[in-house]
Amino acid sequence: MFQRVAILGLGAVGGSIGLALRQAGAARQVVGYDSGKGISERARKLGAIDNAVSQATEAAREAELIVLATPIGAMRSLLQQVAGTAPQGAVVTDVASVKMQVINWAEEFLPSTVGFVGGHPITPKEADGIDAADATLFQQRLYCLVPTRRTPHTALEKVSTLVEVLGATTRFLEPAEHDGMVAAVQQLPYLISAILMQTAGDSPSWHDARLLADDSLRSATSLLAGDPAIYRDNCLSNSETITRWLDTYMKHLRELRDRLAVRDGSIDAVFRKVLKIREEWMK
Amino acid sequence: MFQRVAILGLGAVGGSIGLALRQAGAARQVVGYDSGKGISERARKLGAIDNAVSQATEAAREAELIVLATPIGAMRSLLQQVAGTAPQGAVVTDVASVKMQVINWAEEFLPSTVGFVGGHPITPKEADGIDAADATLFQQRLYCLVPTRRTPHTALEKVSTLVEVLGATTRFLEPAEHDGMVAAVQQLPYLISAILMQTAGDSPSWHDARLLADDSLRSATSLLAGDPAIYRDNCLSNSETITRWLDTYMKHLRELRDRLAVRDGSIDAVFRKVLKIREEWMK
Repeated sequence: MFQRVAILGLGAVGGSIGLALRQAGAARQVVGYDSGKGISERARKLGAIDNAVSQATEAAREAELIVLATPIGAMRSLLQQVAGTAPQGAVVTDVASVKMQVINWAEEFLPSTVGFVGGHPITPKEADGIDAADATLFQQRLYCLVPTRRTPHTALEKVSTLVEVLGATTRFLEPAEHDGMVAAVQQLPYLISAILMQTAGDSPSWHDARLLADDSLRSATSLLAGDPAIYRDNCLSNSETITRWLDTYMKHLRELRDRLAVRDGSIDAVFRKVLKIREEWMK
Repeated sequence: MFQRVAILGLGAVGGSIGLALRQAGAARQVVGYDSGKGISERARKLGAIDNAVSQATEAAREAELIVLATPIGAMRSLLQQVAGTAPQGAVVTDVASVKMQVINWAEEFLPSTVGFVGGHPITPKEADGIDAADATLFQQRLYCLVPTRRTPHTALEKVSTLVEVLGATTRFLEPAEHDGMVAAVQQLPYLISAILMQTAGDSPSWHDARLLADDSLRSATSLLAGDPAIYRDNCLSNSETITRWLDTYMKHLRELRDRLAVRDGSIDAVFRKVLKIREEWMK
């Protein structure tokens, strides 16, 4: 049983963590903070938190576990604020999709008496915002935990307990390993789709061409409906790794382009290969 | 009322055309041919055709309207066969996603007494095969008609009547115009997705990384479930145009990559722009 959990950032993820903790009776008190007008009050009404506070520092005070659930761009400042008020022995975790930068900030700002464990729940993309909070969001999902070299064992245990309460499965990863993989399966698809939409949609023929689009373009760009600011933050904070993936991507695409230019009839070897990879993945 | 319609190729599209013609009572006789074992017999049982024949030439004999509904790779040979048997005044049309190559073949092989109109119905990607045939497949969809310089007016009228019977809306396009647009909205998305799946899926980290994939990669690659042979044929027969689109794509992607490499905070201008383009399109 947690004594006091502070959730900073009450979107769908932060709100869902609060709901799950409260519904499981796993915390004596859940305190919530959000910079958006009326959000923390709404979270309290929905049962995601017990108390709404108007400052991040106020939420962190006396908290045993502090969960950063904002977009990554807001986390640097929150870690600075938390650093000054979190009690000795407190544990801080986050839910950002990219881990190295948050870990660097945590090591820079948090005192050695406050533990940090990076976290990244893999959840389906659905509506965002506190009204989309759902206590079952994490059930049977993967929850990556990324300790730092300084993470005390007790901190890791506390965050593992949180993951258990959420009904998710823990997977421990190294920071660089995590960010390399997440670049390939989350940020790369977004960037690839964005440029596809730019190429087709920013051309003079788009006005007519869009009428000829079947489901292909729609499905290939459906993830663009996400919040551009969150993707920007994630991409910027993982730019080195993503750049490497983009270089590999462009190398493969250039090869395909050159084979197509000479009407190489064997290009379907690539198509068959990726179909097989995808089918095995979907199993 | 058509006297005799021949449908060569009885997949979902060919079968749906047969069903729609017969249910509307718009043809005295629908004859069907398919090179696949048992397919034409199955089509007859499902009501998509009146008679199954075992040779394309036999189907074309005495036909007023001949519909080529195979993958584009099979159309060259079919046009050669049809050329020798189609009666004077017959009209040939096709349903391939790419038009210039089919039109070149038609002009090369068909006698001047047989008219040709290229066709391309824009249908949702669903299951393929005769069992997916559906008389309503074309209703309220766009149906591109691409006449050649030699297409007689009467031929255009007959194929327009077919489109009306199918419940679709005709859009007349020039061959190069059609193929340029379809490359951007159908073949480009497929190729972009294929290389994304190759980049992520053919890497050493894929075995672990796929567990970290949220809906992003799944939706961005969902169109890869289509038949690789059909995409190969379409891509090869439209290779020049696609190559130009790929060059534009790579130029845009290179720009984004270079901005990301220097952590240019304004990259979300692209993200916001494509979100807006997509939202306007979805309206």
